[in-house]
Amino acid sequence: MSKTAEIFCIGTEVLIGDITNTNAAYISKRLSESGINVYYHTVCGDNPERIKKCLDIAFERSDIIVTTGGLGPTYDDITKEIVSLKLGLELYEDKEVLLRICEFFKKRGRTMTENNKKQALIPKGAVIFENLYGTADGIAVKNGEKTVIMLPGPPREMIPMLENSVLPYLKGMCDHVLVSSNVNIFGIGEAQVENLLHDVMKSSENPTVAPYVDGGEVRLRVTASAQTESAAKDLITDMQKKISDVLGNYIYGIDVPSIEYRLAHELLSRNKKISFAESCTGGLISKRFTDVPGSSGAFGYGFVTYANEAKEKLLGVNAKTLEKYGAVSEQVACEMASGALEKSESDIAVSATGFAGPSGGTNDNPVGTVYLGIAVKGKGVKSMRLTLGGHKVVQREYVRALAASNAFKAALDELLTLHK
Amino acid sequence: MSKTAEIFCIGTEVLIGDITNTNAAYISKRLSESGINVYYHTVCGDNPERIKKCLDIAFERSDIIVTTGGLGPTYDDITKEIVSLKLGLELYEDKEVLLRICEFFKKRGRTMTENNKKQALIPKGAVIFENLYGTADGIAVKNGEKTVIMLPGPPREMIPMLENSVLPYLKGMCDHVLVSSNVNIFGIGEAQVENLLHDVMKSSENPTVAPYVDGGEVRLRVTASAQTESAAKDLITDMQKKISDVLGNYIYGIDVPSIEYRLAHELLSRNKKISFAESCTGGLISKRFTDVPGSSGAFGYGFVTYANEAKEKLLGVNAKTLEKYGAVSEQVACEMASGALEKSESDIAVSATGFAGPSGGTNDNPVGTVYLGIAVKGKGVKSMRLTLGGHKVVQREYVRALAASNAFKAALDELLTLHK
Repeated sequence: MSKTAEIFCIGTEVLIGDITNTNAAYISKRLSESGINVYYHTVCGDNPERIKKCLDIAFERSDIIVTTGGLGPTYDDITKEIVSLKLGLELYEDKEVLLRICEFFKKRGRTMTENNKKQALIPKGAVIFENLYGTADGIAVKNGEKTVIMLPGPPREMIPMLENSVLPYLKGMCDHVLVSSNVNIFGIGEAQVENLLHDVMKSSENPTVAPYVDGGEVRLRVTASAQTESAAKDLITDMQKKISDVLGNYIYGIDVPSIEYRLAHELLSRNKKISFAESCTGGLISKRFTDVPGSSGAFGYGFVTYANEAKEKLLGVNAKTLEKYGAVSEQVACEMASGALEKSESDIAVSATGFAGPSGGTNDNPVGTVYLGIAVKGKGVKSMRLTLGGHKVVQREYVRALAASNAFKAALDELLTLHK
Repeated sequence: MSKTAEIFCIGTEVLIGDITNTNAAYISKRLSESGINVYYHTVCGDNPERIKKCLDIAFERSDIIVTTGGLGPTYDDITKEIVSLKLGLELYEDKEVLLRICEFFKKRGRTMTENNKKQALIPKGAVIFENLYGTADGIAVKNGEKTVIMLPGPPREMIPMLENSVLPYLKGMCDHVLVSSNVNIFGIGEAQVENLLHDVMKSSENPTVAPYVDGGEVRLRVTASAQTESAAKDLITDMQKKISDVLGNYIYGIDVPSIEYRLAHELLSRNKKISFAESCTGGLISKRFTDVPGSSGAFGYGFVTYANEAKEKLLGVNAKTLEKYGAVSEQVACEMASGALEKSESDIAVSATGFAGPSGGTNDNPVGTVYLGIAVKGKGVKSMRLTLGGHKVVQREYVRALAASNAFKAALDELLTLHK
């Protein structure tokens, strides 16, 4: 029989809507994938009385209670205190934890204040999950059949802790294995993916196939349930073959963190260098490419030529081309890419110039229009026109993000065609 | 006495983490701003038994219960049914609502299915909130002192309904106004902020002052309650003065979206131009600066010089300096900034060179060490050494993000000192 879980977020900033409770979604997803049924989410503020009441309710109805927040150094961080009080557990100052907190501050050349010591208080008999990115360690305590797991609120501290420590800790608590894998797709919408894969997706109960959309990309999450991990993986592999038969080239990877990650690794394995010339994306393409650890082996030069003068001076774009066609044009995109290729002596160069909004744009090239240039050593240069939408409020961000993703996909396609 | 509210989301897709509960954050924020205290969020799946239990708990502890989800046409949409059952209200088919649903389909050239008729079932005595973007109308029912407001799940339907119908409906239910404002802080940790402001924060019940941490920054949210908006604003202004007396230069803005936003606007107002020379940040500084709409007026050139060769070629960094001190050094940071200033003919230039990890680093300059160079036209160049982050997985992202924020703060400080 599977255990049931409740995610209990403690924090006034979440309660009053300053912060969205992304933790609950993340934890729920990962617990569900681990075969633990999540039945409730609860949020309350930093109020002892109400935290206590929510905890009572959670103990009544759930086997595993995962709290987030309230482990910080300040006086309104009281999760540990209230849980310990409820379970009749004493808090002691853990020497090892205290030492780690001291080290944390020392390493950063910052002064540890007296109230940080509070974070070394641990309920007796607890399991401690080390926080690699902050001073609030996670804590698990058991009480009969019930387990309370207390995690820090900031996702950048909570997520690694959940992945590295909490999920392995919970592994013993369920009787089957769920394995998931993602098929990464670019250049086709969710509805189209669903249309093409309708029969494949509908007919399969195990593994399940669910599409997710994120930043203009579609991800198909394939999840299989089995007695063993290898049996689940076999089910997944079979399904991925079926998906690949239908979607072909739209798939850019399996469990790849991002399209730029795939591109960087294809370049590195071929010992090729890329460079970027950016106008409307303003550095985003270079930034995302260098998000990939080790990308320095494939990238040395990025040109952020936001001003026309910079396009001329750094990339050698012709003043006449700028005047005749405007900065947002096929011609300028091509000259930018060629200039970047030449100045950086790389093997491939991609440029982006467009109108990201909110202002700008012309009748022919309204906001959302972006031209990419792709120059390949010894092969000339070509361009691509993108028409990118997006809701008004987030349009600038959306246009820039999609322009960057398209730049990576264009470079990847070029690379794979050249070196089959 | 203010009413207390609870946001109750009904939907398996939210419960298992496929969708993040952004509705709860949105509704909470808007209710709080309207002077209604939100004390709890709850989420449960499309399960009649558990919905009923959550509803019982909510009735016990809250005056206003706002549900989202479960108003659709399918068999697992049961919010109305369960609420009506609990309150002993009969459901009737509302002719006007049914007509609107028919119209909705007709307008879109789509066929209305039999199960859509379910959406015209309304509890007796309910107030109906018309859905302008879908077929699930919102509903309010009263039961003694308790009010239940049922809203559709999709934010694009829920938000306009909340704004246009629900908030005006609730207006009569509270007797005061809540106003919030954020003090943006950089360069000092949360615990330190609290230490310095301990007396100010502790002694004040209205306005309240709460610290939030996000991406290495601290935000102090000041919230005042009063009879009128202007009275609340006065309370906030007084408190912000007290905070400013203590934190001084660590404050970079009031209700400013980001530190780069403040920097861009200071540059624009002075008609000054900035340029960036980036190694370890790989384009992030330029990218974040150009996230600010209108930033093109203050920025033309960004140099992403990831390779040493690029530092020499694009910025004129001396090969000997690179050899003697290494790319991650005070000296190279200074030459990068000076080079960027000169090549771009801007008024100020900031550079960043460091070890973002996961690999790299030396004994003297371990991973997390970043040098900034700040060059000002006619004023020479100076450098700054940062020690950021400590461990693996998200460290690279964190080091880069904090290096960028520090670069903006350094430029801002420089600008404000120069032009007092």
